[in-house]
Amino acid sequence: MANKNEKLNNIRHSFAHVLAQAVLKFYPDAKLGIGPAIENGFYYDFGNVEISEKDLKKIQGEMKKIISRDLKFKKEEWSVDKAKKYFKEQDAKYKLDLIDELKKEENAKKVGIVHTGDKFTDLCRGGHVKSTKDLNVDAFKLMRVAGAYWRGDEKNDMLTRVYGVAFENKKELDKYLKWMEEAKKRDHKKLGKKLDLFTFSDVVGKGLPLWTEKGSVIRRELEKFIVEEEISRGYTHVYTPDIAKISLYEKSGHYPYYKESMYSPIDIDGEKFMLRPMTCPHHYELYLRKPHSYREMPRRIAEMANLYRYEQSGELSGLQRVRTFTLADAHIICRKDQAKDEVMGALELIDFAAKTLGLKKYKDYWYRLSLREKGNNEKYYDNEKAWKESEKFLRDALKERRDEFEEAEGEAAFYGPKIDIQMRNVNGKEDTAFTVQYDFVGPERFNLNYINKKGDEERAVVVHRSSIGAIERSVAFLIEKYGGAFPLWLSPDQVWVVPVSEKFNKYGREVMDKLREAGVRADICDGDDSLGKKIRNGEKNKLPYLLIVGEKEKKAGTVSVRDRQKGDEGAMKVEKFVEKIIKEVKNKK
Amino acid sequence: MANKNEKLNNIRHSFAHVLAQAVLKFYPDAKLGIGPAIENGFYYDFGNVEISEKDLKKIQGEMKKIISRDLKFKKEEWSVDKAKKYFKEQDAKYKLDLIDELKKEENAKKVGIVHTGDKFTDLCRGGHVKSTKDLNVDAFKLMRVAGAYWRGDEKNDMLTRVYGVAFENKKELDKYLKWMEEAKKRDHKKLGKKLDLFTFSDVVGKGLPLWTEKGSVIRRELEKFIVEEEISRGYTHVYTPDIAKISLYEKSGHYPYYKESMYSPIDIDGEKFMLRPMTCPHHYELYLRKPHSYREMPRRIAEMANLYRYEQSGELSGLQRVRTFTLADAHIICRKDQAKDEVMGALELIDFAAKTLGLKKYKDYWYRLSLREKGNNEKYYDNEKAWKESEKFLRDALKERRDEFEEAEGEAAFYGPKIDIQMRNVNGKEDTAFTVQYDFVGPERFNLNYINKKGDEERAVVVHRSSIGAIERSVAFLIEKYGGAFPLWLSPDQVWVVPVSEKFNKYGREVMDKLREAGVRADICDGDDSLGKKIRNGEKNKLPYLLIVGEKEKKAGTVSVRDRQKGDEGAMKVEKFVEKIIKEVKNKK
Repeated sequence: MANKNEKLNNIRHSFAHVLAQAVLKFYPDAKLGIGPAIENGFYYDFGNVEISEKDLKKIQGEMKKIISRDLKFKKEEWSVDKAKKYFKEQDAKYKLDLIDELKKEENAKKVGIVHTGDKFTDLCRGGHVKSTKDLNVDAFKLMRVAGAYWRGDEKNDMLTRVYGVAFENKKELDKYLKWMEEAKKRDHKKLGKKLDLFTFSDVVGKGLPLWTEKGSVIRRELEKFIVEEEISRGYTHVYTPDIAKISLYEKSGHYPYYKESMYSPIDIDGEKFMLRPMTCPHHYELYLRKPHSYREMPRRIAEMANLYRYEQSGELSGLQRVRTFTLADAHIICRKDQAKDEVMGALELIDFAAKTLGLKKYKDYWYRLSLREKGNNEKYYDNEKAWKESEKFLRDALKERRDEFEEAEGEAAFYGPKIDIQMRNVNGKEDTAFTVQYDFVGPERFNLNYINKKGDEERAVVVHRSSIGAIERSVAFLIEKYGGAFPLWLSPDQVWVVPVSEKFNKYGREVMDKLREAGVRADICDGDDSLGKKIRNGEKNKLPYLLIVGEKEKKAGTVSVRDRQKGDEGAMKVEKFVEKIIKEVKNKK
Repeated sequence: MANKNEKLNNIRHSFAHVLAQAVLKFYPDAKLGIGPAIENGFYYDFGNVEISEKDLKKIQGEMKKIISRDLKFKKEEWSVDKAKKYFKEQDAKYKLDLIDELKKEENAKKVGIVHTGDKFTDLCRGGHVKSTKDLNVDAFKLMRVAGAYWRGDEKNDMLTRVYGVAFENKKELDKYLKWMEEAKKRDHKKLGKKLDLFTFSDVVGKGLPLWTEKGSVIRRELEKFIVEEEISRGYTHVYTPDIAKISLYEKSGHYPYYKESMYSPIDIDGEKFMLRPMTCPHHYELYLRKPHSYREMPRRIAEMANLYRYEQSGELSGLQRVRTFTLADAHIICRKDQAKDEVMGALELIDFAAKTLGLKKYKDYWYRLSLREKGNNEKYYDNEKAWKESEKFLRDALKERRDEFEEAEGEAAFYGPKIDIQMRNVNGKEDTAFTVQYDFVGPERFNLNYINKKGDEERAVVVHRSSIGAIERSVAFLIEKYGGAFPLWLSPDQVWVVPVSEKFNKYGREVMDKLREAGVRADICDGDDSLGKKIRNGEKNKLPYLLIVGEKEKKAGTVSVRDRQKGDEGAMKVEKFVEKIIKEVKNKK
């Protein structure tokens, strides 16, 4: 994988150089910023220039011309002085900034320079193809322009960023563009509105979703599923308050690490209370209400927990990034000798839940072993032995399960390493969806003990885990994955009864009532639309089943079943259809 | 009822006079405060005196002596001047305060004076029996002493309040004392701890309950029951955020009225957000996301809503009074012509839910029509016509249902009149448990409209209602009502399998597994306690069913069923017992 990635990165970065060269042709006074390879493509930042999206076509044309000239990429190392002199002559102020930065932060004596043929020279760390002929003129596309502050700092100049996508060949580009097209249609913010699943209100506040009747059905079914599944796996589901005194988070040690994500305190009788950003210390306090025998361990304490974490206004995005969310959270307080089984059990549950939601291992999600940044004792709790021990512990668990996984330094929690289950949303952004974490800090800070066989107190360990993650984010993902055509068991409307004419509305309602009595979410299209329009409307709303009823069906006590996937399935006795759909819902079809 | 109450009030108030007379015998320097009849008895406040509970016996003895003397209660009217002169001579400063108050506030020229024989004279509005011989010496008891500020104002003197209970006859007193005894045992705070249903943590904060594994089962079952029941009655259950901008409550008009009950604001990016004290404006904003046709009305929007209301630290009491609670809330937005049916429907649902919880109409709960205080336009929204109309409307609904009800002025919401369903907790305190409210203010402030038949916008009305009230308060009530012996469907543990000896633990576990697979909350007593101890433990924990298993049962594939109420029920095939219990749970036995 790494080699392929490196090759693609080189291609993309080389395209960035070509882009800068092309821009300079039309805008000779443009000041160049940086031009890195990014996921799926590249960008370049330009100052002192106005480029709009309608200019992209001519720039793209010029890029193709440059590529066709077979210019060689040639790398050199220049002394800092030589480089500064050169870029001063070019009046390239951002490049000079970069050189100063390299000098200051890395104590650099030399800097990298890359020439494209003899036409274009740029400051650059490297990572290129050999020649422009290694770039496929049919495998890239300039996509859009956006504003970006120089070095990401709003005190600096606003530059114009030109984005492009690039691949090895046309087939891959086309695949990506098609996927983007599809993604736009599946964007959960758009679909959520179209299917009337959730809404926001300016008077209520940004990032605070209001779930509609239909969206709430999906959420409730998901919650019901995971609560029942967890209980059947020996979890106990509890309720703890969404606010607590600030001292609780000081006790847990979260406060200094999470301060920036927490909202301002609420004053009650002169004491400070916080909206909780996490559930752990709440569950610890619950555990502490009484002593626990080694025989009672593990205690698997789960909760559908409302959490509150600050997100910048610009980061908010539909149900994907919100300011309050409900996490399918749990804390397994156990003996050290049980911890491995508990980690394995949590991973097993996540696999099961993911499968039930239709997610495929390695395709839809993958594993990341998230480790600390070694030596950073400010961000990570200082206990060398515990870190080593617990990292090995999680690595061994993944190996024993024969799971493929990547390792990521600097992604651990402050209290221990994690196994993160990563997913990518429809816009290609990677996010942690579910997680299993080992915690050696919480038990110390809260004195989480149990009484061992000898009658002595012994320190417990804690495994944190979320099974289906944050409901908001999971629903956002499901909307995009299914493009609104939810599996039957999650569908807000499962069945519409469609009478062929008003004459059969009465029979249709009898059918609907029978379905509703059996707990099926059924409705009837008894308006005065034509049969064709009713059916098209049902299809537009991605109804799993449409049941057509007319003279023949009424006489025989049947319905004509139209399956969303399989199409016409012919007539079926009402009772038999009820039986069939109940079974399918039960099996989470 | 009124006459009986008046007679009992006279008895109780007369006992207060006798109490004061008796106290003066032992503490001649005591300064008398007030001595009213109260629910179940009476009290009298004394200043300049130290009385502790061990003194009550001698005071009670003296009261009996006084009563036996057959002293007549004689009422007179004295001029204010005469009364002031008399009480000045007695150095009775609190009585002088009261006379000044009567003069100032009621412009009184004369005041009531009551003599008990020729031994004791008191300032008094009246309401006495004719003679002390009308008081039954065996039908009263002094209960306790407490501190109380003069006129309830903490800036005044702290007095000693002596409480007594009094009835017409000994039988009624005994009945009350027995009930009190029972009530103490059933106090949900005590039972909640004993049965390990909920806990509090000083680090989390006062009034913020943490539900244990067992308590959470009861809560979850209740929530599941009411959500499913409401959905089957055409409600849609939604999720809306627990915080919102202060402007939402300003828009709704709640803010000025509820300010004192709301917590301090949370600052997010310079805007003020509040923990919500009610759900209404959240549901209105949800409704406003799109236009609604008259055909879609009513919209019955329900939610298990977390609410936050300030309670003084001294008012907090177990689950009964908390600082955050979850209300089974709903707002029915409907056409005016539908409102009556909706009010009737809500009352019907409340009856059904109450019955399911084992509550009896008029015994456990009763109806109160809560009206505004006429003319108070500060506390109640100023719209004379709407108040009259809606009060008549609710009164007619109660009449049509042939419900008995009392009317209470000054108990309405600021936005309209209510039908409150009142209950009394185990300590005798009356509380509103459920409620149905008519709102003519919300629709105006939020422009809650629908499109009528003609295609024009028309104003909707709102019926607010809670079905099983606040979960916390309802569970507190259920704990006390059932003394911990919850109905089967609510029992945290439904079945314990009890092997007669270790030899049958394996068979016992097979039985337990079968029960668990069927969704029954089952456990096994496989420790090394004796059979007798295991059974006693099961009884102490009020287990609905104990299943004894030994040699005979193992061979026959049966269990010996011990029913909490009916006792031994003999042997039963395991499958048959599973069938039986599933059916009972389904029927909410």
